[in-house]
Amino acid sequence: MAETSRRAAGRRLQLPLLCLLLQGATAILFAVFVRYNRETDAALWHWGNHSNADNEFYFRYPSFQDVHAMIFVGFGFLMAFLQRYGFSSVGFTILLAAFTLQWSTLVQGFFHSFHGGHIYVGVESMINADFCAGAVLISFGAILGKTGPAQLLLMALLEVVLFGLNEFVLLSLLWVKDAGGSMTIHTFGAYFGLVLSWVLYKPQLEKSKHRQGSVYHSDLFAMIGTIFLWIFWPSFNSVPTTLGNGQHRTALNTYYSLTASTLSTFALSALVGQDGRLDMVHVQNAALAGGVVVGTSAEMMLTPFGALAAGFLAGTVSTLGYKFFTPILESKIKVQDTCGVHNLHGMPGVLGALLGVLVAGLATHEAYGDGLESVFPLIAEGQRSAMSQAIHQLFGLFVTLIFASVGGCLGGLLLKLPFLDSPPDSQCYEDQIYWEDLPYPPPPGPGRPVPFVWPSRALPAGPPRRPARPGPCARRSRRRPRTMRANVSGRASRLCKCPTACENPPPPPPRLPSPERGWRPGRGGGGGHCIGMSCRPGAPALDRAPLSMCRRLIAGRVCQREEEGRK
Amino acid sequence: MAETSRRAAGRRLQLPLLCLLLQGATAILFAVFVRYNRETDAALWHWGNHSNADNEFYFRYPSFQDVHAMIFVGFGFLMAFLQRYGFSSVGFTILLAAFTLQWSTLVQGFFHSFHGGHIYVGVESMINADFCAGAVLISFGAILGKTGPAQLLLMALLEVVLFGLNEFVLLSLLWVKDAGGSMTIHTFGAYFGLVLSWVLYKPQLEKSKHRQGSVYHSDLFAMIGTIFLWIFWPSFNSVPTTLGNGQHRTALNTYYSLTASTLSTFALSALVGQDGRLDMVHVQNAALAGGVVVGTSAEMMLTPFGALAAGFLAGTVSTLGYKFFTPILESKIKVQDTCGVHNLHGMPGVLGALLGVLVAGLATHEAYGDGLESVFPLIAEGQRSAMSQAIHQLFGLFVTLIFASVGGCLGGLLLKLPFLDSPPDSQCYEDQIYWEDLPYPPPPGPGRPVPFVWPSRALPAGPPRRPARPGPCARRSRRRPRTMRANVSGRASRLCKCPTACENPPPPPPRLPSPERGWRPGRGGGGGHCIGMSCRPGAPALDRAPLSMCRRLIAGRVCQREEEGRK
Amino acid sequence: MAETSRRAAGRRLQLPLLCLLLQGATAILFAVFVRYNRETDAALWHWGNHSNADNEFYFRYPSFQDVHAMIFVGFGFLMAFLQRYGFSSVGFTILLAAFTLQWSTLVQGFFHSFHGGHIYVGVESMINADFCAGAVLISFGAILGKTGPAQLLLMALLEVVLFGLNEFVLLSLLWVKDAGGSMTIHTFGAYFGLVLSWVLYKPQLEKSKHRQGSVYHSDLFAMIGTIFLWIFWPSFNSVPTTLGNGQHRTALNTYYSLTASTLSTFALSALVGQDGRLDMVHVQNAALAGGVVVGTSAEMMLTPFGALAAGFLAGTVSTLGYKFFTPILESKIKVQDTCGVHNLHGMPGVLGALLGVLVAGLATHEAYGDGLESVFPLIAEGQRSAMSQAIHQLFGLFVTLIFASVGGCLGGLLLKLPFLDSPPDSQCYEDQIYWEDLPYPPPPGPGRPVPFVWPSRALPAGPPRRPARPGPCARRSRRRPRTMRANVSGRASRLCKCPTACENPPPPPPRLPSPERGWRPGRGGGGGHCIGMSCRPGAPALDRAPLSMCRRLIAGRVCQREEEGRK
Repeated sequence: MAETSRRAAGRRLQLPLLCLLLQGATAILFAVFVRYNRETDAALWHWGNHSNADNEFYFRYPSFQDVHAMIFVGFGFLMAFLQRYGFSSVGFTILLAAFTLQWSTLVQGFFHSFHGGHIYVGVESMINADFCAGAVLISFGAILGKTGPAQLLLMALLEVVLFGLNEFVLLSLLWVKDAGGSMTIHTFGAYFGLVLSWVLYKPQLEKSKHRQGSVYHSDLFAMIGTIFLWIFWPSFNSVPTTLGNGQHRTALNTYYSLTASTLSTFALSALVGQDGRLDMVHVQNAALAGGVVVGTSAEMMLTPFGALAAGFLAGTVSTLGYKFFTPILESKIKVQDTCGVHNLHGMPGVLGALLGVLVAGLATHEAYGDGLESVFPLIAEGQRSAMSQAIHQLFGLFVTLIFASVGGCLGGLLLKLPFLDSPPDSQCYEDQIYWEDLPYPPPPGPGRPVPFVWPSRALPAGPPRRPARPGPCARRSRRRPRTMRANVSGRASRLCKCPTACENPPPPPPRLPSPERGWRPGRGGGGGHCIGMSCRPGAPALDRAPLSMCRRLIAGRVCQREEEGRK
Repeated sequence: MAETSRRAAGRRLQLPLLCLLLQGATAILFAVFVRYNRETDAALWHWGNHSNADNEFYFRYPSFQDVHAMIFVGFGFLMAFLQRYGFSSVGFTILLAAFTLQWSTLVQGFFHSFHGGHIYVGVESMINADFCAGAVLISFGAILGKTGPAQLLLMALLEVVLFGLNEFVLLSLLWVKDAGGSMTIHTFGAYFGLVLSWVLYKPQLEKSKHRQGSVYHSDLFAMIGTIFLWIFWPSFNSVPTTLGNGQHRTALNTYYSLTASTLSTFALSALVGQDGRLDMVHVQNAALAGGVVVGTSAEMMLTPFGALAAGFLAGTVSTLGYKFFTPILESKIKVQDTCGVHNLHGMPGVLGALLGVLVAGLATHEAYGDGLESVFPLIAEGQRSAMSQAIHQLFGLFVTLIFASVGGCLGGLLLKLPFLDSPPDSQCYEDQIYWEDLPYPPPPGPGRPVPFVWPSRALPAGPPRRPARPGPCARRSRRRPRTMRANVSGRASRLCKCPTACENPPPPPPRLPSPERGWRPGRGGGGGHCIGMSCRPGAPALDRAPLSMCRRLIAGRVCQREEEGRK
Repeated sequence: MAETSRRAAGRRLQLPLLCLLLQGATAILFAVFVRYNRETDAALWHWGNHSNADNEFYFRYPSFQDVHAMIFVGFGFLMAFLQRYGFSSVGFTILLAAFTLQWSTLVQGFFHSFHGGHIYVGVESMINADFCAGAVLISFGAILGKTGPAQLLLMALLEVVLFGLNEFVLLSLLWVKDAGGSMTIHTFGAYFGLVLSWVLYKPQLEKSKHRQGSVYHSDLFAMIGTIFLWIFWPSFNSVPTTLGNGQHRTALNTYYSLTASTLSTFALSALVGQDGRLDMVHVQNAALAGGVVVGTSAEMMLTPFGALAAGFLAGTVSTLGYKFFTPILESKIKVQDTCGVHNLHGMPGVLGALLGVLVAGLATHEAYGDGLESVFPLIAEGQRSAMSQAIHQLFGLFVTLIFASVGGCLGGLLLKLPFLDSPPDSQCYEDQIYWEDLPYPPPPGPGRPVPFVWPSRALPAGPPRRPARPGPCARRSRRRPRTMRANVSGRASRLCKCPTACENPPPPPPRLPSPERGWRPGRGGGGGHCIGMSCRPGAPALDRAPLSMCRRLIAGRVCQREEEGRK
């Protein structure tokens, strides 16, 4: 009891103190270092001879706003697919991203725009900060539901530094091209998160499996995220490229790549699905792989056909990854990847880096003309051959994977610090831990009586759509209805032969209202009493218990205190 | 059994193969024909003397992104109003649109930007492809819920060709003005879809009527679509117009027209509604008619007052259409128009075309000044009088209606090909056919026992909001509660005098848990048995059936196999 | 009965007639006064020597579209948090805003762009009209759920005039700077609405308290609104500022301020929350306060650090306001503020005005350089000192508060006109009054039998998340579970010692189906009868009533007509 209350006090203060500390620190650093750049400052802008139309703002701000929408609307709602974790998905997205925007302005500023002791900011720093937030949210996707907000802030604190360092090595030391961030954002974010998830492996996570699914409406909320990511991805890849033809071509390539990944996702999803049916998980995620895969190469002369081919490949690989690789990842490699970021960002990101190697290696003066200078300045200046650029690109991928893996390990150790409040394995994917006033009944779990859900005609009240997202047994049991048959005889789930059957236990027997159990109202509308219900299975029935306790019993809540009160 | 499995195998392969085939074909055509245009190509852009700020990208891309959001978010969620068809509405929207973007890039490219054996692409081709996707999605709205994804892809394959041909005749041969596509997009898309729906008439569709309504939350998802369409319609109409005053004026006119259609929609909806109440269907749809009606004329000197008047008229016509014409359309003309596209796109589109005739006929050199050249180049050059332009506009409407009708017929015949998998009349508006893992109970239907829905305090679990959207009987029964009375005596719905009563059958009697029926749990929490329930009405009760079968009975699922197993 | 039907007829006609009247009036005024401005008119634009790229459209339209999304998507969905008022929140937002856009084009045009008897319109008038709609929707937030649509239109009719007048006094007479509208939009809108809500005080509103909460999914819909407001606020503040560095700097400052208000909101929400848990209300609202607080000063040289500090302060004040001040506002000052606009717009708006005073007072030629002319023209021209500008800013705040208070009083008296249809205190926050075909059971209330909600495994069917949003008792009872205990003994809520306990009455005892009450189905599946249920508490039980009446009893509907029919 004392430990519980100390733990509660710890949680009570952990998030507020961390927020205040981090905000205070960044504010001080802002006061010392951060200044308006030439295009943002009232005085500096008016030095020199240029028109207002030349301000970088007009070339990049509309696309920046699309990226901003992707980060907050896209990632936020895409992760809201979980039935009981929508508040946290959307809420922690905004918290994490808000902190990252500040912190990465500082970190990226130190690496990229630190002159005379000051960091100069403008629309480009806003774009870069949003990109960094994208990487942090990708890592968040891998550990979604398994960490508390304080842990997430610490993860962002570390990840932003490593992101900035990796980006600096790639873009400023190796002169690697990576406008849309196939390497710096997607590969880095995904493998950072996956390694972190591996370090934080939760062996008892099956106790939360029943919450790891979606319901009909939560999947529609997730589709909001998917579609905003889909439509604005051309802006994401094109916003940092060179003005004029650069932005134009990048947007066009990404647009075509996404259409192809969508078609291949539907094709593959129906091909591997039961009875040719589609899986919403694939559509929500793999359809976006086309944006990831051209992140590096979209600004190059990929050609429209190249964009289609790349997108097609990415959609295929991603869909097959969700279907076949995620279960293996969890059962064999012990990486629990809640959102399947390995399929959406990891593999397509690596593919995108390799595609960049290929397209850079094929760069010629004929294909790029005078545009070569803006796409590959070192080749245009004769300092590098196309082949040398390609090798640098490949080395950039290697560096990114090193940074992500080492960073993920460090992050995992940081998040395992004992004083940090982490949800227990049986309480993952649950909003109730973090948000006030969610008086829905506790989710069904082993050893806890489950309130029977009366089948409803309206969809949202139905049972969860996918009892377990990436669990291999869930997938298998779909194929083998005989494992379900085992329960016909009324025996317990222990008899199920499937090795991971416990990940997806059959729901406990329903408790229907019957003459012997439930609330028996008094004749006049008032009064009445509860009969035949007990606090825990096996405990004596609390016959004639008063109304309030009966309601708790029906709602499935434990009633220890009432029982004590009665003694 | 053999036929069923063959059918299942057919469905299993139909969509994947079609996707792969179409993607393969467009990819090859892209490789052969599609090239970056001057503003997108690294080499071409640097020929000649111009600044990056001159790139078409900066004039059109922000508005293009608004259009992109309308196509995917707007249309996708607007069609998600159906209670059990949200996944398909949003999912098939993205599939259809993704394919259309590729295919119409090719088709429109052949008609409009085919030079020296190549199609040149850039932001303008992206905009045009999105416009074509708009027309395809309008047609989709007419047949929503009644066709499978493979059928939809074939429809798009045909419609895109006819759309491109019609657009070519209007814009390049007749020199008709139609920036926002009142004719080429809305009229064409609507009548193509309506004629197609007429050919595909499903006489037994009333068997799916109970699924054709919305629930509270599905209507809120639809409002997401409505609002994104509403706010971005000014961009839709203005994005392809001439730079400068052209885009500016078009956006302004559309903005005013939409405000007026919104006010008239609320006025008319309350006027014709029961007790002065509003109908969500009108707000979701008719409020948008103001954008459709100025599609042709918004780039002309319509004047702000003209925009208000046009919008007001369109909102009125559209609302009255939903209230009075859609039921007639279904019962008399045998056109089943799921989303009411005739009211939102058909009639306002024709009105918009006629308004274009009027405003073009009134064009004068005084009103347009030097801007006449960009709006009506042939009048400015003296090759046509304003009256002649008006006649050409009118002829353009005529051509569009011909193309749409003939195309719709062809499309209908194509979609009726026997090997194509089409949902049976009793399985329309149902996600479960196309999407995996939707284990909600089968929807109530004739001859199937209905699980009683316990009235819930939270809204979404309530009964469907509109049992039947455009059914004339549904509307009438609201007025005549006596037709409901017929059931008081417990007799079947056949006694209902309303001629189309079978379209909206009264729900079967609820099956309340009673001492004689349901699951009787054992005293200790385990064990127990089911009593008093039978597999089908009339079958012997399966007293003392084990738990799993009882659950199936309660969920309303057939239990043939279990019965056999018991024998 | 006669009065009821006359009232119904009144409501039936009130909204349609008002809509038609207002639309007719604005249309006539548009015809007489409104003309395209130079940048929108085909003829005028071609006078003079300028390129199409100079058109104001390209500098402001992308940001305008962001603002448009904020007004309709942001405000609309933010207010959709109520469990039974989603249709009205979103629907009336679009109605109110559509009318306001027209009406404020006229009013603002008279004050700001009336030349030669005509009002000239273009993208700037569109932006200003959207800003005015923002103020009207803020006021709507204060009275959300307590007024009918006709009342809202009348409120807008008055508020737009006062908004235009106040704006004219501030911007054109006092030469106050207020780009993002901390004063003219947020302070004005909030206090207008709050005073109006004070005049319309509903003493019996606790009868609707059970409907004033949210459910899980309605809170997610509200988060759509929050996020769109959050991401586009930089556009909102920057869209009307001077071109070039002005827009750039304003967007940047707002961006930083929002990140800081988000961090402080999470910190404070967890600090004051039970067990360190977060409150969704705070995240939905207070996280946005950073945008409000820099509305005046963001275009000035606030510095990035200043933006962070301002945002941090605003988030803190707003969160504490929701937690501690809103309950006092309602119980002591008798202002019922549904959305807490005092915390999101009122206090942060005043703070923002004061921040503007401070930053204006610190303006120097060194800091602004040649940019001083565009930010503070009167200081640049030497007509005013920085101190004098600061005093004018402060006076502007004072004028705004006067206009808002007097206007709110007038508005309240206008809305109290007896012939206007206003929802009774017990029918607030209820869609069913305004929208057709919402056949969910009437919400539980005092003296009405409540259908028992069977606890559901899916979230949305659970009980409402917050039974009463800003009620002080709701907050307190959370802390003192003993007030809940009072009900254990089965006694009525009157015994509760909490002074405002009646605001949050314990739900009436559930009515479980028992052998004595409910529908007893016949053996063969047909037939059956209802037993033991009565129409009203105390009325004789209608034993053996037919099915349809029993269904009405279970749904909690009155059954007067049936009873009469039986007699």
